[in-house]
Amino acid sequence: MNHLPKDPDFEARVRRSFARQQFMTTIGATIAAVAPGEVILDLACRPGLTQQHGFLHAGVVTALADSACGLAALSLMPEGAAVLSVEFKINLLAPAEGNCFRAVGRVIRAGKTLTVCSGEVRKGAGPEAAVIAVMQATMMALQDRPGISD
Amino acid sequence: MNHLPKDPDFEARVRRSFARQQFMTTIGATIAAVAPGEVILDLACRPGLTQQHGFLHAGVVTALADSACGLAALSLMPEGAAVLSVEFKINLLAPAEGNCFRAVGRVIRAGKTLTVCSGEVRKGAGPEAAVIAVMQATMMALQDRPGISD
Amino acid sequence: MNHLPKDPDFEARVRRSFARQQFMTTIGATIAAVAPGEVILDLACRPGLTQQHGFLHAGVVTALADSACGLAALSLMPEGAAVLSVEFKINLLAPAEGNCFRAVGRVIRAGKTLTVCSGEVRKGAGPEAAVIAVMQATMMALQDRPGISD
Amino acid sequence: MNHLPKDPDFEARVRRSFARQQFMTTIGATIAAVAPGEVILDLACRPGLTQQHGFLHAGVVTALADSACGLAALSLMPEGAAVLSVEFKINLLAPAEGNCFRAVGRVIRAGKTLTVCSGEVRKGAGPEAAVIAVMQATMMALQDRPGISD
Repeated sequence: MNHLPKDPDFEARVRRSFARQQFMTTIGATIAAVAPGEVILDLACRPGLTQQHGFLHAGVVTALADSACGLAALSLMPEGAAVLSVEFKINLLAPAEGNCFRAVGRVIRAGKTLTVCSGEVRKGAGPEAAVIAVMQATMMALQDRPGISD
Repeated sequence: MNHLPKDPDFEARVRRSFARQQFMTTIGATIAAVAPGEVILDLACRPGLTQQHGFLHAGVVTALADSACGLAALSLMPEGAAVLSVEFKINLLAPAEGNCFRAVGRVIRAGKTLTVCSGEVRKGAGPEAAVIAVMQATMMALQDRPGISD
Repeated sequence: MNHLPKDPDFEARVRRSFARQQFMTTIGATIAAVAPGEVILDLACRPGLTQQHGFLHAGVVTALADSACGLAALSLMPEGAAVLSVEFKINLLAPAEGNCFRAVGRVIRAGKTLTVCSGEVRKGAGPEAAVIAVMQATMMALQDRPGISD
Repeated sequence: MNHLPKDPDFEARVRRSFARQQFMTTIGATIAAVAPGEVILDLACRPGLTQQHGFLHAGVVTALADSACGLAALSLMPEGAAVLSVEFKINLLAPAEGNCFRAVGRVIRAGKTLTVCSGEVRKGAGPEAAVIAVMQATMMALQDRPGISD
């Protein structure tokens, strides 16, 4: 799918929004790529992010996919709009074992109010890396809310 | 729903499993209550857990609800079984503004392999606290997997 | 939860909307009850509605729960608004064996644009009937769309 | 993804299972293609399948996607196993207006017990047809259940 960004400054805006997500700093996530309707985030696993079996906690897997999807949605929104997660669903296909994870968020349909995204999380950054989770998410554009912008 | 635990030691087991989830320590979550088929977790918000508008990040809301649901499922599993999240879906009903959040995970149906749970996250610990998120989750019991137990 | 309907004529409106859902007639569903924010639908199973094992098809279970949730959302919408399903997720807890099914749709949160509902489908109409499916759904209010109203 | 079927007779088995889904006959769905891990179903819309605005009912859209996903899962299961829907989530991207719909179900990950699938429903059979719904589904293999086979 080719998406046309409404805001020519979309990449800087996505990077600013990500930089303000303090939880992304807490877990150590970084932006690997930003394109119109697609954002890629990377994360190195470390002990403080694990669940009881030593795998990356499903909540961290989800947070990474959710942020990637939200930023992908934001990349197509008009200037001044803010993005909020409405809902998402994730299937965890395999234990999140490993040192390095990559989440890809993609816009499937960008509507005026709602944007539907698909996300996936891979075990590693290469194209051969196994997919360990798939997400389907709905994001919402908030316009003209005082104090809320991205 | 009244659930009968298969493992009389269920509460200590839930608490041990929670204590081994390092990510729960990272975000500062604590156990408020454990009953057969129901687990309650508390979390104080702080800057390191926020998204771009200063609300609790949806990924943290989700992690808390996921852990509460997983532990609720574990509380009904036979000795030796481990629990893994298969999938979940969350609706974020309102921005997670506030200082203190409570997640309740409850078993809806405990099967031999799969357990279905519902979770909710409230803004505060009191019975009047507004529900800000609802989750529907599927958990899986793993038996006899070397190196994996709860 | 007590919901206050914005449209005093909500019950007649819900019944009219249901009557126009030809697919509900095709499967033989009927309205059992309408209250503000809650709608109950009944369905008798028959051979034409089954899947390969002779149980009620998951698609029919879902259609019943979706209609109950959509109508529950509609019951709280202002005059002139129409309702559309944005997304839903259903967990099928047990095979839909039996002759008679009841779906209950309830509004969890009614927003200006989006309404979040929970649905359940029971095997039979009595309060003791086993729950065979639980749904979490997002509905949308459409205002002032020519040709679309409920 | 290339999937290797465990049962060389997979196509005949998928077609037999579909033929026994009486609800698919009721709505008039037909099989367009069967491949290992992928099944395509077609459906012509008619008045008896509509919702209140005259679009294909979301329950029918879902039933078609669910059957396509379930059959895709079945195509990779060993002889003697039966398939049951555990849960699914669907996002309805656009009103299901039109005369002709096509659902594609694909296996994302085939496990011993659980199979995760993605489904999409298009408005028309051509490659250019707009996607109106996307599904993420979990299917379960049932083995050695007396009276249940596909």
